[in-house]
Parts: sequence; structure tokens; C-alpha cells
Amino acid sequence: MTLTDLTLVTRDEASATLVSVPSTDAACCAPLTRETITAADAEVFSRRLKALADPVRLRLVSIVAASEGQEACVCDLIEPVGLSQPTVSHHLKILTEAGFLSRSKRGTWAYYRLVPGALDAVAAPLRSV
Amino acid sequence: MTLTDLTLVTRDEASATLVSVPSTDAACCAPLTRETITAADAEVFSRRLKALADPVRLRLVSIVAASEGQEACVCDLIEPVGLSQPTVSHHLKILTEAGFLSRSKRGTWAYYRLVPGALDAVAAPLRSV
Repeated sequence: MTLTDLTLVTRDEASATLVSVPSTDAACCAPLTRETITAADAEVFSRRLKALADPVRLRLVSIVAASEGQEACVCDLIEPVGLSQPTVSHHLKILTEAGFLSRSKRGTWAYYRLVPGALDAVAAPLRSV
Repeated sequence: MTLTDLTLVTRDEASATLVSVPSTDAACCAPLTRETITAADAEVFSRRLKALADPVRLRLVSIVAASEGQEACVCDLIEPVGLSQPTVSHHLKILTEAGFLSRSKRGTWAYYRLVPGALDAVAAPLRSV
């Protein structure tokens, strides 16, 4: 392996990490009532809110969050929302990319788990101080 | 005034009240992590989230919320967000209709005030229990 190969591998791994790690490790910003949100923080926060701001996605998050271990099989998410599997998968992808859910495949099915702290991170800037 | 006139007046007043009273007097629903949100509550909650899920509207709410008395003149909201007055007014209308801001006219200018509890009502269902 040459030095160039090594660099390329490292770059790929870095990109993969950037894509798969949820970006909700902390609240994006101080409470809106305490100080004016910056334009950059408003962009980040609005993207998180948009991912949640859909009735089907709210129900999917809630079903997962209220399940045992805060985890649910995709096979148990389709019937409650009454939509096709591709549509449900589309919404789950948005929630996963926004860092609210994490996905793991076990056997035939994908399982979705609530990312700890992800909902609290959205609530935090909205709380009065 | 006939009975019919009276009925019509009452109906008009009832409609006006429905339009102008903010619908954020309480949280729409139980925490998402405690029990599965109903389809009806998910509709209500997603509409509130959508009204907030925009970078300009987040900044406007935050400027108002962080102002003295949680109130600001529209004349002080235009420059910070760097948009035209009609655009700012459009966003303020969405925030007012969603119950986050209340509007009062004094002299030439409109003043916007944060509706007490409106942001907390959105935060509440997102908090873990």
C-alpha cells in the first residue's frame, strides 16, 4: 500500500463517519429567549425541526420512542401509520439522517432505535430560562 | 335587530375568535417517549413545528424573545435578518397565526410579543420523561 492509497482510505473513512454519525450530540444553541440565535445556528436548528415537522415522522419517532428499549422493527412501523413500506422507509431515512433514529439490520429486517438525547436537544433551545 | 341578525353577529364573533386566539395555551400532547402520539395530535404538533422550522422565523422569534419585555417593533426586525419588509411581515404572520407571537399596532408600527408558554408548549412533548 502506498502513501497515496493510505490517504485515500483515510479520506473515505472520514467521509463515511461524517455521513453516519448523528449530529445531535448536543443542543445546537442557547435558549431562544436568552440570546438571539445566530444565522448559522438557525440553519442547523431549522433543519432538525423540519425533519420532525411532519405528522407521519412524528408518529414514527413516537412509536419507536415508546417501544421497549426505544427500538422497533420496521415491520412493526408500517401498519400503525397505514402507509406503504417505501413511504415509511423514506420517512425513516429522513429521521435517521437528521440524527433522531439509528438503524441496524438484523436478519431480514431493519431496526430503528431512538438516538439518546436527540429529542431533548431539540427541546432545549425552546425552553424558557 | 332581529334574532337572525343576532345569530349572524354571534357567528362572526365566534369565527374571529377562532382565528385570532393562539392555540398554544397548553402542550398538544404527552411526551413522545411516554406514549405513541395520536394521528390528530401529530397533525397539530407538526403544524406548530413547521411554523418554527425556518431559519428566518427562528431568528425573528429569537430576536423578539430576547428583547426587553419579549416585545419588538417590526421596524427593529427588518435590518437584523436582512430581508425586505414584506418578506419579514410574511414570516411574522406565520408565527402569529401559529400562536408564537401576538401583534399589536401602536402609532405607525406593529409590535410583536412572544406569547407566554408558546415555545415551552412545543418543547414539552419532546422532552424525555
